[in-house]
Amino acid sequence: MSVAIVGAGPGDAGLITVRGLELVRECEILVYDRLVSPLLVAEADGAALIARDGLAQNAVNELLVRHGLRRRKVVRLKGGDPFVFGRGGEEVDALAEAGVPYEVVPGISTLTAIPGLAGIPLTSRGDAAQLTVVTGTSADGGELDYTQLASTPGTLVVFMGLGRLAQIAAGLIEAGRDPDEPAAVLSQLSWPGAEVRAGTLETIADLAQGLASPAVAVIGAVAARAMAAEQLFA
Amino acid sequence: MSVAIVGAGPGDAGLITVRGLELVRECEILVYDRLVSPLLVAEADGAALIARDGLAQNAVNELLVRHGLRRRKVVRLKGGDPFVFGRGGEEVDALAEAGVPYEVVPGISTLTAIPGLAGIPLTSRGDAAQLTVVTGTSADGGELDYTQLASTPGTLVVFMGLGRLAQIAAGLIEAGRDPDEPAAVLSQLSWPGAEVRAGTLETIADLAQGLASPAVAVIGAVAARAMAAEQLFA
Repeated sequence: MSVAIVGAGPGDAGLITVRGLELVRECEILVYDRLVSPLLVAEADGAALIARDGLAQNAVNELLVRHGLRRRKVVRLKGGDPFVFGRGGEEVDALAEAGVPYEVVPGISTLTAIPGLAGIPLTSRGDAAQLTVVTGTSADGGELDYTQLASTPGTLVVFMGLGRLAQIAAGLIEAGRDPDEPAAVLSQLSWPGAEVRAGTLETIADLAQGLASPAVAVIGAVAARAMAAEQLFA
Repeated sequence: MSVAIVGAGPGDAGLITVRGLELVRECEILVYDRLVSPLLVAEADGAALIARDGLAQNAVNELLVRHGLRRRKVVRLKGGDPFVFGRGGEEVDALAEAGVPYEVVPGISTLTAIPGLAGIPLTSRGDAAQLTVVTGTSADGGELDYTQLASTPGTLVVFMGLGRLAQIAAGLIEAGRDPDEPAAVLSQLSWPGAEVRAGTLETIADLAQGLASPAVAVIGAVAARAMAAEQLFA
């Protein structure tokens, strides 16, 4: 295998997979995201270290293909999971097209790390059997379908859409979703600056002011448990 | 920390986290699920090994609390992630109530492992910005709201609901979802018996006949990429 696309997990260096860490330690070239622990970057002892910051996606693809064609051991280390609302797919497509052998190692997505790290289950029996995840915009880049979303049962997660949270909350309330529904924002989970703020659909955007990325919002009955988490991180 | 609730990941022993493996190696008592790699169980060298199979959830909770109160080093090793449609929440509640110190280590959920292991992205720009996950039934244990689900944009994942897939597909089609929409079933991802079958919403339940658990179904445009994955696992 020449190029490995590896998920680093939600932040804490201990939350990368065993296979992922093995590849980082063996690589000759490490291309890493800003949202990756410096402790993991340091594990690539002796490798050429390339920060992805400031590179366009096309430039990253080209970099991986170029070194891959020379059969260098390359690790592309990405925050969370490479494919859950990430752009790992574009990198894999570029490698496949160029005939470069590659391996994908999944990572723990911030999405699935929420319950373990903030104590908020995404689903719970008798309460929330369905999970819906949206980013800030619809597939064509336009507004979300708030009418449809307002009637969706279960838990609603807004993934990395902090900047548009006020607009999303207002859109949901206008479309008929209960303004008093529990809601929480989780910022920088598993990082030293982790913070949880809890309130309702109506108050959550104001409460989230000043929180840092990466952040996710959880809307629904399960978010009521975030009150305890708020104490935990205070 | 006395009790650790640890996610083992989707199957392959290399996909547990570094922190999770560390805890397994150090534990005195390992309580493990059927869907956990024997290679991971073998890492708990010298520990008392307790298979969870055949124990009721209450009995598992009691076991964790009893040994936790004695401050034994206990690892509860669960397939996938303990909280993504799992019952890790009930175990944590029991430990908290009894005042037992515990730690949660997330695992890679089968849900987020789908793209990396089967090559099917869950979301993709311009195609599927929204992700909806359901199990076989609604929160109160009854039928899913097919009318609502049929109009949901983006990708629909049926998690571990293989036994009810025929009913779910029929319900969606009756409620107006396109019978020709791409659909795929992924069985035992990251296990030696991994298998992918691809078709349409109309054909998928028949195609999935005979597949083993754990299995997930993916419905939506992104499932068209499962055709390539089908070859991969054939």
